[in-house]
Amino acid sequence: MAYFPEIEKIQYEGVSSKNPFAFRHYNPEEVVEGKTMKEHLRFAIAYWHTMTQDGSDPFGNATNQRPWFGATPLETAKNRVEAFFEILVKLDAPYFCFHDIDIAPEGDTLEEFFSNLDIITDLIKEKMDETGIKLLWNTANLFSNPRFVNGAGSSNNADVFAYSAAQIKKGLDISKKLGGENYVFWGGREGYESLLNTDMALEQDNIARLFKMAIAYGEKIGHKPQFLIEPKPKEPTKHQYDFDAATTLAFILKYNLQDDFKLNLEGNHATLAGHTFEHELTVARINDALGSIDANQGDVLLGWDTDEFPTNVFDTTLVMIEILENNGIAPGGINFDSKVRRSSFAPEDLFLAHIAGFDTFARGLKGAAAIRADKFLSDLKAKRYASYQTGIGANILADKEDLESLTEYSLKNGAAITNESSHIELVKSHLNDYLV
Amino acid sequence: MAYFPEIEKIQYEGVSSKNPFAFRHYNPEEVVEGKTMKEHLRFAIAYWHTMTQDGSDPFGNATNQRPWFGATPLETAKNRVEAFFEILVKLDAPYFCFHDIDIAPEGDTLEEFFSNLDIITDLIKEKMDETGIKLLWNTANLFSNPRFVNGAGSSNNADVFAYSAAQIKKGLDISKKLGGENYVFWGGREGYESLLNTDMALEQDNIARLFKMAIAYGEKIGHKPQFLIEPKPKEPTKHQYDFDAATTLAFILKYNLQDDFKLNLEGNHATLAGHTFEHELTVARINDALGSIDANQGDVLLGWDTDEFPTNVFDTTLVMIEILENNGIAPGGINFDSKVRRSSFAPEDLFLAHIAGFDTFARGLKGAAAIRADKFLSDLKAKRYASYQTGIGANILADKEDLESLTEYSLKNGAAITNESSHIELVKSHLNDYLV
Amino acid sequence: MAYFPEIEKIQYEGVSSKNPFAFRHYNPEEVVEGKTMKEHLRFAIAYWHTMTQDGSDPFGNATNQRPWFGATPLETAKNRVEAFFEILVKLDAPYFCFHDIDIAPEGDTLEEFFSNLDIITDLIKEKMDETGIKLLWNTANLFSNPRFVNGAGSSNNADVFAYSAAQIKKGLDISKKLGGENYVFWGGREGYESLLNTDMALEQDNIARLFKMAIAYGEKIGHKPQFLIEPKPKEPTKHQYDFDAATTLAFILKYNLQDDFKLNLEGNHATLAGHTFEHELTVARINDALGSIDANQGDVLLGWDTDEFPTNVFDTTLVMIEILENNGIAPGGINFDSKVRRSSFAPEDLFLAHIAGFDTFARGLKGAAAIRADKFLSDLKAKRYASYQTGIGANILADKEDLESLTEYSLKNGAAITNESSHIELVKSHLNDYLV
Amino acid sequence: MAYFPEIEKIQYEGVSSKNPFAFRHYNPEEVVEGKTMKEHLRFAIAYWHTMTQDGSDPFGNATNQRPWFGATPLETAKNRVEAFFEILVKLDAPYFCFHDIDIAPEGDTLEEFFSNLDIITDLIKEKMDETGIKLLWNTANLFSNPRFVNGAGSSNNADVFAYSAAQIKKGLDISKKLGGENYVFWGGREGYESLLNTDMALEQDNIARLFKMAIAYGEKIGHKPQFLIEPKPKEPTKHQYDFDAATTLAFILKYNLQDDFKLNLEGNHATLAGHTFEHELTVARINDALGSIDANQGDVLLGWDTDEFPTNVFDTTLVMIEILENNGIAPGGINFDSKVRRSSFAPEDLFLAHIAGFDTFARGLKGAAAIRADKFLSDLKAKRYASYQTGIGANILADKEDLESLTEYSLKNGAAITNESSHIELVKSHLNDYLV
Repeated sequence: MAYFPEIEKIQYEGVSSKNPFAFRHYNPEEVVEGKTMKEHLRFAIAYWHTMTQDGSDPFGNATNQRPWFGATPLETAKNRVEAFFEILVKLDAPYFCFHDIDIAPEGDTLEEFFSNLDIITDLIKEKMDETGIKLLWNTANLFSNPRFVNGAGSSNNADVFAYSAAQIKKGLDISKKLGGENYVFWGGREGYESLLNTDMALEQDNIARLFKMAIAYGEKIGHKPQFLIEPKPKEPTKHQYDFDAATTLAFILKYNLQDDFKLNLEGNHATLAGHTFEHELTVARINDALGSIDANQGDVLLGWDTDEFPTNVFDTTLVMIEILENNGIAPGGINFDSKVRRSSFAPEDLFLAHIAGFDTFARGLKGAAAIRADKFLSDLKAKRYASYQTGIGANILADKEDLESLTEYSLKNGAAITNESSHIELVKSHLNDYLV
Repeated sequence: MAYFPEIEKIQYEGVSSKNPFAFRHYNPEEVVEGKTMKEHLRFAIAYWHTMTQDGSDPFGNATNQRPWFGATPLETAKNRVEAFFEILVKLDAPYFCFHDIDIAPEGDTLEEFFSNLDIITDLIKEKMDETGIKLLWNTANLFSNPRFVNGAGSSNNADVFAYSAAQIKKGLDISKKLGGENYVFWGGREGYESLLNTDMALEQDNIARLFKMAIAYGEKIGHKPQFLIEPKPKEPTKHQYDFDAATTLAFILKYNLQDDFKLNLEGNHATLAGHTFEHELTVARINDALGSIDANQGDVLLGWDTDEFPTNVFDTTLVMIEILENNGIAPGGINFDSKVRRSSFAPEDLFLAHIAGFDTFARGLKGAAAIRADKFLSDLKAKRYASYQTGIGANILADKEDLESLTEYSLKNGAAITNESSHIELVKSHLNDYLV
Repeated sequence: MAYFPEIEKIQYEGVSSKNPFAFRHYNPEEVVEGKTMKEHLRFAIAYWHTMTQDGSDPFGNATNQRPWFGATPLETAKNRVEAFFEILVKLDAPYFCFHDIDIAPEGDTLEEFFSNLDIITDLIKEKMDETGIKLLWNTANLFSNPRFVNGAGSSNNADVFAYSAAQIKKGLDISKKLGGENYVFWGGREGYESLLNTDMALEQDNIARLFKMAIAYGEKIGHKPQFLIEPKPKEPTKHQYDFDAATTLAFILKYNLQDDFKLNLEGNHATLAGHTFEHELTVARINDALGSIDANQGDVLLGWDTDEFPTNVFDTTLVMIEILENNGIAPGGINFDSKVRRSSFAPEDLFLAHIAGFDTFARGLKGAAAIRADKFLSDLKAKRYASYQTGIGANILADKEDLESLTEYSLKNGAAITNESSHIELVKSHLNDYLV
Repeated sequence: MAYFPEIEKIQYEGVSSKNPFAFRHYNPEEVVEGKTMKEHLRFAIAYWHTMTQDGSDPFGNATNQRPWFGATPLETAKNRVEAFFEILVKLDAPYFCFHDIDIAPEGDTLEEFFSNLDIITDLIKEKMDETGIKLLWNTANLFSNPRFVNGAGSSNNADVFAYSAAQIKKGLDISKKLGGENYVFWGGREGYESLLNTDMALEQDNIARLFKMAIAYGEKIGHKPQFLIEPKPKEPTKHQYDFDAATTLAFILKYNLQDDFKLNLEGNHATLAGHTFEHELTVARINDALGSIDANQGDVLLGWDTDEFPTNVFDTTLVMIEILENNGIAPGGINFDSKVRRSSFAPEDLFLAHIAGFDTFARGLKGAAAIRADKFLSDLKAKRYASYQTGIGANILADKEDLESLTEYSLKNGAAITNESSHIELVKSHLNDYLV
């Protein structure tokens, strides 16, 4: 525990605490709706934003001050494992997530990369055994290296497809080794820069091929994590095929992947696609496809992925309602795919920002539970849709009506139909009462 | 032919014509790729924008000067039939489209509405027989009347569901009577204002129920138009369920509607959803779901549906490429779901604006055909994806590879993969050569 | 008090009240920072959304149920005065606002319109005297009538310019008669549909001419309300000249109007322009131009003006910080330029929605006052900019440095400059503590 | 001429040429409206996108293949000068632009940076003398180095303000040395990440202070380039103070900078701010502030700065109309602030992409000249605003009317006002005729 000697394990001190290095809402063992907060929230910390993000942006260089750089890339990678588990332990985070290139240097050849991955995952395994911290999911980064300039599974270059397959195989081997509960695909380059030179049909068929190979390989090695696709509409490409939850569901259904694949949904990706985060969660939930979430928030007035730490209690309350309605998020979790702002460059910001995120989600959980306890929204909906409980409505739901019988009914009923006011302004105003 | 006595039948006069009441590019009988322009383009005129749109907007009253108002709503409706067919004939448009409430007054009861529809469709049928002009599609307006305030098929009020069913039944009866080639569903209110009070699962199930009833009724009466869903992301509701082509495909697949339903795609709806029109067309085409199009253009810097007449030759060229790649749009067509700007309020603007739209699509057709004749894009793609024609690429497409074999291949191949530059700037610059 | 017999005067009942027809946060006489809530907030109710808005939208007809329609337009107008003051009194609103056409029928001639305005403003004056309720501002509607299709002051038609001048003169006469504290210009059609046919220089010069005529006339009649321009970026036009606060300030400065004109800022207009509401308020405040606000909220995922009642306590807290920093908003106020959703069509929704809005602003006021009491943000800023209090920073602010002296300083200083982390995630998380 | 031995000087070969390394529209000596294309267009090439941009993006590493890397940063910098002038000469570009850090390594101290700048600008000067190529503008990069994390002139840290001043002084010294015709300020970090911790008034005052120091220093050294501010609304910061042309004009007027400052406008920045490029140009032109342009295009469906090479002939035609209306852009020019797509990574793409850009602007110039020759738009406007040429309209423009006289006029005139239809669809359709 050498990287942050001045930082103690973060404790829950309650809302009146003035200590910035304390939780004021996240109380891991506090019971809500019969489960502890820790069980509900299943927090995971992201290797990339925590360990390798440097604070650069398209117009500026790295700002982040990080204490773990060694003499060689491999030494740095080893230091990062130490530092990362120190952070996990001090934040009391039960899970973590990573891309392959986050943890180990790519080296000059695929062989070398695999060898580096073996070295580092051995270290990680030791740390996991030591601490009890678990792997929520891992994934292969198939978008940063220049070879993926035109995609991975969707590349026009068959050699790139093959290379992607190799990285995915290794990713599944690592998942088995570390007991990963999920395995994620984010198609950052699976899309197009220009439709003029793109064969969308071939590209999407190939992505599906790759996914089917992954299913088959998982079965072969006897390790079956929940597979997850992470939708995002655009950035880095002009258009990404997994635009949003509904689009990705269309892909899953078209290629008959629904038994093995669910969705990993992210707040900022939702708003980039023109949706609220709760919309995306609802779409996934009602299609039995809510797998896991990447917790962050975007700025709806900006058009790119800012991946801010979630600090808006409105949003987390609405998110937690969906998760509670879904009977929880397991085997998925709440992964902080969030990065400190470029101006929060101090090492301790890694703690302060995660504390902010943990607390804001804990507030959301408490608020959502209160809404459910009061039946605030469920009563509202029950009353609103009551007409489907009896009479013609019940018949409709029972598939006993057809166009002719409903025409006959309506001709009798006349044009006069009574709708009830939604009083939606009142509803929205009362929602403020549940902000914790 | 009394409503526009000063306007003659619009003739093709060629690009050098200075006559604003002439086609300068649309030459109906000109042959392109073995078919006449008329056969390719299958132009339809929209009853609503042409006959009932009044130029009002949320901040201003009606501006449009229209010569067909009579003493009663029914008289006006009859006058409109006369005027509409005069416009169709003078513009040489082979098709038309309408909502039920565009053509006949709703009256005080459903019975009266049906009776008015019978009277007017008798008139329309006469005109069709007389002129040879055909019905591309009709639809039921299930969004304007206050009863649809919370949706039609997705309404929380079962009586509204029933009423919607009755209008759809009548719509299919009319379709049969008039020989409609397609039947459209646009879910303008099928969506939500707020998720807080919405049961999305119930609402979507009910929409699917309504569609299945429509299929069943069509089969019963022995009239099977191509059913079309028209995606739109938002407006008038905050979120519409048929957000875009991909989302609507997910719905179609989930409810197993793919044998009966295709998509009716609109330019302005595409951009509101964050896509180009050509993107939406490609998505539909590669899923065998390109049914018909609503021709118009939006303003990408504005966030609402402006339904402008298409005058951008870039866009129409890219649209026509997709239609030619699809082997045409029949039994669908190109329907001008376009309205004159509020400042183009003169009666003759109905002609001038359609001439602008017809000509811009004719330019697009000629440009697209030239692109295909030169194999400008097809050669580009063939070269770009060549690696899938032989070797490992061909094996991948033949489903002969798996993660292990591709790992083995890649380990041999090493990290060094050669991608080719896209030279995309050159490609885009040369596209200008094809603007006619 | 005949229009809402079942509704009593709305009382403050505190946060535990379950009565939907009670204030739970807005306690008019409660003192905050030395002033009553009523004095701080200066709530005004808008005639248009309350009395003439009908619930229609571009895709649907009127839904609102309103009890005041009479046999003639003038009778309806008189009924509206009665009903409006009943609402004002029952909501305990100290101010109101209107456009000329909201209150009186336009009739067939300008003369008739003026006569109708005289009749109705006599009635309004009586009611004002009776109740003590005051006119925050009035304005001339120069955008709804078809004559304004191409603008008012910016119209290409000089007759329209003249007509606009006449309406403004009458508006100032009414302002004097009713003791209006402000007078607003919203240029809903002052902009363009297409640049191709627009002479922007002439149009902007003419708008300025009209404003100068208004100043001159006000001086002549000895009535000088605070003149306000209300920025909006677009809708109904493609581009409105008063795009946002900064753009409007440029106009004010160019035409030397700064002694007479300030800004009337609106929440939804801010977000349509790509800004937060608090941004617009800050821009106005630091330029001594914060005149008044139109309280509402938009939906940042939608691209049009939804004018929702403000129910987001985050936003109202940030707004109230700016108003407190500005030493209040007087002689302006907080005008609810908000309309009930189309689904909130019942008469009582006019009360419920305003209660929601009043309460949400009262929450914001309490939260903002708490933030100021704790010096949460002021301490943060003082520390952050401390380097300008002494040394080189103080010299810079005192204009004692130049490029050469600062170069000399920097060469000595070296490249090593120490910035402090912003810890912005912590700041944002703590902001939640102030949501009341 | 060693870096691109296989590429000859690019020649104009006319539209029928199939040679990708030829101009097909840009014919430098061709005379249009009495000036050569070269004189009209004043093309400049940007050092940054051409020499230092590496193809990386927030999700991917460098892809660009560049042949000029040396053993040390300074050697690379020297090689770049050679290579850059080879490109300039071969493209026949008369101008170039750069930031200080593009051309020389920053080194470890400010002193070292200045020394490197001296070395490299000596080399550049030699090359300029040798080739006759001139400096359109240079600027100081005050946004990439971590010290500018919170801004430069607007930094909360006075040492950063001082450092910025030093870089600007050196920039002006270099401008004098190289005969720069303009000097640019782009405030990439002059704005805010969060309003919560921002003192906007202090920050904007300080930016103005810096600009005034620059004016004073220019006067002192007897070198007065045209100063230019480049507006951009956001990215990298959440909000940039120089949001758009109008906002920047407000700043210029507030601080009385209008005698020394004009605007440098960019296509992609315009659309990010919600405007068309031609809108921004018009705003600048009618305020006598059109200084120079950064030529590129964005993707209006994306929310970040893509800086694509301009290939859309619609856009360049509309831009060139504004430049011709402005009587040219000198002493400004058309600077290609454009970068090759990440997939156009080959060295020759630097030529192909500039050829695409030069040709598209040459098309635009020819199209704009044709529009002016036909008086297509000027006649349209003259007719549209004719009412201001005589009678009441002429009186209004002559400031002979007031609210009272116009009321009298309007009361006589009655409510009946005749507006003319804009026929805007026809206008837009005919615009296609001018696409070259």
